[in-house]
Amino acid sequence: MTSDTPMKLDSLWRGAHIATMKDGLYSVIENAAMGVVDGRIVWIGEAQDLPVYEAQTEHELEGGWITPGLIDCHTHLVFGGNRAGEFEQRLNGVSYQEIAKQGGGIASSVKATRDASEAELIASASRRLQSLMADGVTTVEIKSGYGLSLESELKMLNAATDIGKQFPVTVKRTCLAAHAMPPEFDDKDAYIDYLCDTVLPKVAELGIADAVDAFCEGIAFSTEQVARYFKTADSLGLPVKIHAEQLSSLGGTAMASSFKALSADHIEFIEESDVKAMAESGTVAVLLPGAFFTLKETQRPPIALLRQYGVPMAIATDANPGTSPALSLRLMMNMACTLFALTPEESLAGATIHAAKALGMEASHGSLEVGKVADFVCWDVESPGELSYWLGGNLVKERVYEGKSS
Amino acid sequence: MTSDTPMKLDSLWRGAHIATMKDGLYSVIENAAMGVVDGRIVWIGEAQDLPVYEAQTEHELEGGWITPGLIDCHTHLVFGGNRAGEFEQRLNGVSYQEIAKQGGGIASSVKATRDASEAELIASASRRLQSLMADGVTTVEIKSGYGLSLESELKMLNAATDIGKQFPVTVKRTCLAAHAMPPEFDDKDAYIDYLCDTVLPKVAELGIADAVDAFCEGIAFSTEQVARYFKTADSLGLPVKIHAEQLSSLGGTAMASSFKALSADHIEFIEESDVKAMAESGTVAVLLPGAFFTLKETQRPPIALLRQYGVPMAIATDANPGTSPALSLRLMMNMACTLFALTPEESLAGATIHAAKALGMEASHGSLEVGKVADFVCWDVESPGELSYWLGGNLVKERVYEGKSS
Ligand SMILES: [Zn+2]
Ligand SMILES: [Zn+2]
Repeated sequence: MTSDTPMKLDSLWRGAHIATMKDGLYSVIENAAMGVVDGRIVWIGEAQDLPVYEAQTEHELEGGWITPGLIDCHTHLVFGGNRAGEFEQRLNGVSYQEIAKQGGGIASSVKATRDASEAELIASASRRLQSLMADGVTTVEIKSGYGLSLESELKMLNAATDIGKQFPVTVKRTCLAAHAMPPEFDDKDAYIDYLCDTVLPKVAELGIADAVDAFCEGIAFSTEQVARYFKTADSLGLPVKIHAEQLSSLGGTAMASSFKALSADHIEFIEESDVKAMAESGTVAVLLPGAFFTLKETQRPPIALLRQYGVPMAIATDANPGTSPALSLRLMMNMACTLFALTPEESLAGATIHAAKALGMEASHGSLEVGKVADFVCWDVESPGELSYWLGGNLVKERVYEGKSS
Repeated sequence: MTSDTPMKLDSLWRGAHIATMKDGLYSVIENAAMGVVDGRIVWIGEAQDLPVYEAQTEHELEGGWITPGLIDCHTHLVFGGNRAGEFEQRLNGVSYQEIAKQGGGIASSVKATRDASEAELIASASRRLQSLMADGVTTVEIKSGYGLSLESELKMLNAATDIGKQFPVTVKRTCLAAHAMPPEFDDKDAYIDYLCDTVLPKVAELGIADAVDAFCEGIAFSTEQVARYFKTADSLGLPVKIHAEQLSSLGGTAMASSFKALSADHIEFIEESDVKAMAESGTVAVLLPGAFFTLKETQRPPIALLRQYGVPMAIATDANPGTSPALSLRLMMNMACTLFALTPEESLAGATIHAAKALGMEASHGSLEVGKVADFVCWDVESPGELSYWLGGNLVKERVYEGKSS
């Protein structure tokens, strides 16, 4: 275009600084401007360098910072009931065993999720989603895994799909059918057979999940069982991710890396060889400080090793009724700094560009660059570090989903 | 009144359960109703027991729970600047010493607070207050203590007074002039003399503080220095409270109890004799889990002893730019459960009736009973335990200040 052909924009934002998060760094543009057409960024830079333009809408922000919209890349947002009652019982001295005998723990969430209608699941998850969105989340991953039967896993994934249609947020759906053992089965291998023969093929056929996940742990499934399940997912063209090395070291992370897993999540107990495997496969380390905090864990993920091998670290809420009833990704960013000693810059990268990579969407989301989707948040802060510094509080001035203010 | 004289009400709320927090317990009324006249509760009970009434406004809540409005009884909400930059430096490996050499730490908050106009202090504190209010706070205590000179301490207390006029929240002001050493003094006794001779008398004369507070610690003031300052406060008719036994055991809590202190705050290092002294003087233990979390402390307050001696435990944010940048009292309730193993019921009592007692206002606030001020919150929850269970998130349906919805 020549200097006398104005750049045509749907919207222009100006009057703030931008932390673009390009390359996982703040990559700051001071006194910035950003132009959007059809929900995509077409111009971004210092306002003084703006070419001549015509914008249908102009947003003058009068200070503050813009960052990419936050991406919560690991949630169990859809579930029936909640476990506040158990939380209260435990603090009143009732043992885990007693609670399990009463049908508590994950079994109670499975029962409540199976008993709930899809509409009920959507309603309760929507309230939780609105809390996440209020705090700056523009993309959320939602896992199944409290159904544990074809019908109820599909119900959960359908609920996640519907939520994505009802809200401006982008929803990524993950089939976590290998989360726990359903009451109908007592043989783990038989349940894995059922998932490989029946559940995963149907999920793939319906195109109802963007990825497949499993819980690899002594209390859940073995590395071999998960490998078998991943092999099926792989053959169906579904990318995989894993809950691994949270409580012990079973080799799940390395195995998942051999499937080029999008992410390995929790990973408190990974070792150097696992980190190497992740680096080679491009697998993201998803850190879940809310679960670490709630479970009062003491073994921290090996941050220094992850940095050394250049493994991208994402941060997520793990929002779930048992081990992380977390409804704020920004709070998780603080906890990643306070509990795991991440820097605020790493923390923000973990909730934006690296979270996008953990969902396989880093080409289009997670940083503010020309050609990417215009999902971003305008914050009432003086520095991007404030997003990790404050414990709670509302710092959002404006949320923009695909170029539209909300 | 006879059955044919209807009870006249300004407003009636119904359609929810109530955790009244009478006597520090949930003291639940199911399917409750509550009538308000002139900002005070005139009727509370089961809806089916309502006498004939005429209400100017009726609020049908359609489920959920009502609790007393949350009371944040320990904040440093008024300050200039913030210390996100230091938070970020520390996580990038800059030492405390280096930061102090650059003029960081509390000195930077003192400088920024002195440099700020009263209007600027009000504006920044108001944003933080709105976060607290959004999460259910109806009464907030605000301390001075970043001025450390007559003029700037009065500026902070004036700002707190103005905030109380601008917002429906009730503000209690505390003079914390003995918070740290100002740059003009190098002798601690001389500074205490100045406070006793000049600052406290003026504060009392102006009626600009509801209580007086001090930081008793090796890095701040000795037990003897604080005792001298408390003696002056006492002679001026101002009740006292204390920051004590946070990092070490100096005897500040016992000394404060001898002045019938409203509260002793932090108190990680108190011993059985201190707890006894608090029980005898009716001093509330104010627990500050946000500071404990942010400072990565390991010594927990002696909860079992506090329970044993019946010392009421309150919970507060300690909202401040250095050691607890906390803007959600409900998050502190979760942290009190997770970090200190309080029960959710103790946690809610700590943010309502016991917090009221820590401010000397338990006769009028902190529980929902006939005659008390109608400050309450309607929550979108199925049990009051959910208030402590969720990490973040917005659970508020309606906030009511002195009988008025907001
Ligand atoms: Zn999970
Ligand atoms: Zn304090």
